[in-house]
Amino acid sequence: MPRYKITIDYDGRPFVGWQRQDNGPTVQGVIERAIKSFTGETVTIGGAGRTDSGVHATGQVAHLDLSKDWPAETVKNALNFHAQPDPVAILDCEKAGLGFDARFSAIRRHYRYKIANRLEPLTHDRGLAWYVKPELDAEAMNEAAQVLLGHHDFTTFRHTRCQAKSPWKTMERICVYRQGYHVFLECSSRSFLHNQVRSMVGSLRLVGEGRWTKDDLKTALEACDRKACGPVAVPEGLYLTQVDYRTPEEDEASFLAYQDSLKNVGADEAPADEED
Amino acid sequence: MPRYKITIDYDGRPFVGWQRQDNGPTVQGVIERAIKSFTGETVTIGGAGRTDSGVHATGQVAHLDLSKDWPAETVKNALNFHAQPDPVAILDCEKAGLGFDARFSAIRRHYRYKIANRLEPLTHDRGLAWYVKPELDAEAMNEAAQVLLGHHDFTTFRHTRCQAKSPWKTMERICVYRQGYHVFLECSSRSFLHNQVRSMVGSLRLVGEGRWTKDDLKTALEACDRKACGPVAVPEGLYLTQVDYRTPEEDEASFLAYQDSLKNVGADEAPADEED
Repeated sequence: MPRYKITIDYDGRPFVGWQRQDNGPTVQGVIERAIKSFTGETVTIGGAGRTDSGVHATGQVAHLDLSKDWPAETVKNALNFHAQPDPVAILDCEKAGLGFDARFSAIRRHYRYKIANRLEPLTHDRGLAWYVKPELDAEAMNEAAQVLLGHHDFTTFRHTRCQAKSPWKTMERICVYRQGYHVFLECSSRSFLHNQVRSMVGSLRLVGEGRWTKDDLKTALEACDRKACGPVAVPEGLYLTQVDYRTPEEDEASFLAYQDSLKNVGADEAPADEED
Repeated sequence: MPRYKITIDYDGRPFVGWQRQDNGPTVQGVIERAIKSFTGETVTIGGAGRTDSGVHATGQVAHLDLSKDWPAETVKNALNFHAQPDPVAILDCEKAGLGFDARFSAIRRHYRYKIANRLEPLTHDRGLAWYVKPELDAEAMNEAAQVLLGHHDFTTFRHTRCQAKSPWKTMERICVYRQGYHVFLECSSRSFLHNQVRSMVGSLRLVGEGRWTKDDLKTALEACDRKACGPVAVPEGLYLTQVDYRTPEEDEASFLAYQDSLKNVGADEAPADEED
């Protein structure tokens, strides 16, 4: 039963999120239906990140098992054919070892957040960015964002319903920059807490407006208190852009280590925490 | 009766074009209705470019006359308020001399054309780019595009229903470049023939696919024959990005000169030719 790794691009607007559920269309549901149309099989696919309703992706990753050993290119083309007309595209498909799990094997997730920062109403950006009218100081936001770099308890920037075992995460990279009337935040971490990026962006917006200083952001982080967080940014500005993995060999060892780690209840940053 | 110059950004998808007509919603219609809601006046506005159905703008320009001398900022905010929920935004509003005419005073128009060049179906780009699957050689397209630079008879790249008096235009700048899976064409000219940009892009696509050489493009241009044109590119990839004007002083002189030029039937490149 061969396993495939697929890289997925989607417009989050028509979906209630990545994860299959009863209250509306989901990206997972679209792909699983496409598989059913292709091979007749009822398959459950696993994604690297469970993106919320309205959240986009340009590089989501999932794995799936098929009973027949199809060429990867055939799987890619068939899923792209059957997923239409939904705005979901398989950008890449490759065979993966059975130890590969899109969620648990991931060693790094990359997100981009897009803010449309102008006084005038949005046109092409509707549903694709957070509309923020007051002028943002992207440089001040970038400087403050560096407070979040490194290993921290991110309780302040975590949804109250987040199911992660630990609030500790390591921000490996975070930057904010302006391009025309757009302000982008990019960040990378092994995994994120539920609503972590949107919570960080919401607080950094206050810095951009001059209502918070870099020290205020530091104080909020160190409070480890959800109430210290700024108003959370909307989902439609968020894009899951890339997920990094180990090589297949590293993968096998990591899978065994992960199974072992499940016995360790207090495990810091268990990969299963990915919630954003 | 003060005259205002407005700069407009719009998503062309829901519109049958810029120009007011009976068969569907237009950008001109949205703005004229916004003016009516604002001041109660029934005003006809003049645009710099009569973009076709589905064509976008990030820098269309129009002029309008109001009976009361409102501050420009008030006009901008009121039109933005009343144009909603249509995807039309007034980016800038300033007072202009009575000699100012968005169409006739323009000295240069800038267009950008966006091609989404990938095998996988489109997601976020739907209606915002031309979907071209075969891999395009953007460098070859750029090199060939230079054939179109300068003063030429553009009959080959002109809609058969184009009403311009002369097919002669001067391409001041044209370039093609790739950014990720997008290929962009940018070009600037005092004015364009109807469907000129889309016709040029359609022919350059053949160069990008290796089906035409630079010499083939030159032959097509020199044929001065509509039948020599490649298949015309779709409207949804086209964006009117900027319109340049003289200073108000130059403007007044130009307006008088233009009125004078109307007597000259064979006038080459009459500003009124703008049709794209």
